[in-house]
Amino acid sequence: MNHSSNEKEPETIEPLRYISKTEVATIETELLRDYRFGQQQLIEIWGHACAIAITKAFPLSSLSKKQPTVLVVCGPEQNGSIGLVCARHLRMFEYEPTIFYPKRSPQSLHQDFTVQCEKMDIPFLSYLPTEVQLLNDAYNLVIDAILGPETDHKEVKEPYAGMLVTLKQVKIPIVSVDVPSGWDVDEPAKDGINPEVLISLTAPKKCATGFSGKHFLAGRFLPYDIQKKYELNLPEFPGTECVIEL
Amino acid sequence: MNHSSNEKEPETIEPLRYISKTEVATIETELLRDYRFGQQQLIEIWGHACAIAITKAFPLSSLSKKQPTVLVVCGPEQNGSIGLVCARHLRMFEYEPTIFYPKRSPQSLHQDFTVQCEKMDIPFLSYLPTEVQLLNDAYNLVIDAILGPETDHKEVKEPYAGMLVTLKQVKIPIVSVDVPSGWDVDEPAKDGINPEVLISLTAPKKCATGFSGKHFLAGRFLPYDIQKKYELNLPEFPGTECVIEL
Repeated sequence: MNHSSNEKEPETIEPLRYISKTEVATIETELLRDYRFGQQQLIEIWGHACAIAITKAFPLSSLSKKQPTVLVVCGPEQNGSIGLVCARHLRMFEYEPTIFYPKRSPQSLHQDFTVQCEKMDIPFLSYLPTEVQLLNDAYNLVIDAILGPETDHKEVKEPYAGMLVTLKQVKIPIVSVDVPSGWDVDEPAKDGINPEVLISLTAPKKCATGFSGKHFLAGRFLPYDIQKKYELNLPEFPGTECVIEL
Repeated sequence: MNHSSNEKEPETIEPLRYISKTEVATIETELLRDYRFGQQQLIEIWGHACAIAITKAFPLSSLSKKQPTVLVVCGPEQNGSIGLVCARHLRMFEYEPTIFYPKRSPQSLHQDFTVQCEKMDIPFLSYLPTEVQLLNDAYNLVIDAILGPETDHKEVKEPYAGMLVTLKQVKIPIVSVDVPSGWDVDEPAKDGINPEVLISLTAPKKCATGFSGKHFLAGRFLPYDIQKKYELNLPEFPGTECVIEL
């Protein structure tokens, strides 16, 4: 997305910038405070974009199982709510999401997103089987919407620590939302889960620098001034697409 | 969109239902109260879908003027906010929207959508020229996001009454959001503006029954239970599209 259609000289194409944990927080604060975006609005935009990215990475016709089942694992904060919105849109796109949301957020905003899923008849699992074969057999893929960039990867508590142990062993593809759960936002992964697909929101994080899987960027709403201020050098999204494969 | 993929017998395809002013209000109340959708969330979804519909009806390459200018005229209530969101997305899609928003809503939610546009450097007109030739010359099309289904068409006050007089005379195409401003929601148009394109939200309104222009339906988020309860018989949206041409 380029604001300068009247530019006289062709610009040098600067490489996409990978942002730090601190920058993630600063940008989000500016979006909410100065640009007056709403949290509800951002979560809806991001969750929708994640669902679109998943249809691109795993079209209905490509799924190996008879039913287009998807397990969406949601954490306690904003990342989890993005997962809930993603699940709702996947349902509209004819997938069959199941949600595992072990610790529900007390925030009324997040509760609303939960009700929206419940009212769409999306099933909620009461526990995550530790026997990974059950997951491999039941689902085509897992959406990891557990821990966002705000989480300290060194302080992952239960039940999330145990969930990550399970998810590290599954054989079906994992799609991570924004940051693969358990990764340090600012460092390449050493340990942690190994997603096949990563959907970066706003801009990719430093930990994604060497990511070798399919990598999407979502967040076409980003005001030009923010893009410029943080020198994000976002690629041009084609047509009206809300995601782009990097 | 069809919930019953396991149905044994093919269903008879019921015609799409055109809903009344009363039903519009009831459905919206249920969405907000029972399904816990947020107003901010719905306005974002609808405004984005309107922008997508406009790119389909008037692709950038089809515009006759050198600059891809669009005039978005926004009313004081929810319809106006949908127009603001639509303008913001059109800007991301490389159009050049200008907004005319003569009476700003005192609601903080609506003010936030206004700031988002201002911060995207979208110009706001301070008055609407009554000389229609100026509008015909300056813009490729007009988006009518003035009066929604909640407005009584017999009680259109200033400045809107005067604006409708102007818009009735423009020669460039008009795109109306949900209900063409000045129409009775429940009756075919007798008088009022004459849009070339209509974007119905949720379900088409009774007044659109005989509409002969290009007609889009936006609102793929609608829970199946609401679709069923109100016998909306919505068409199947293709792929991941958020709008469908009727």
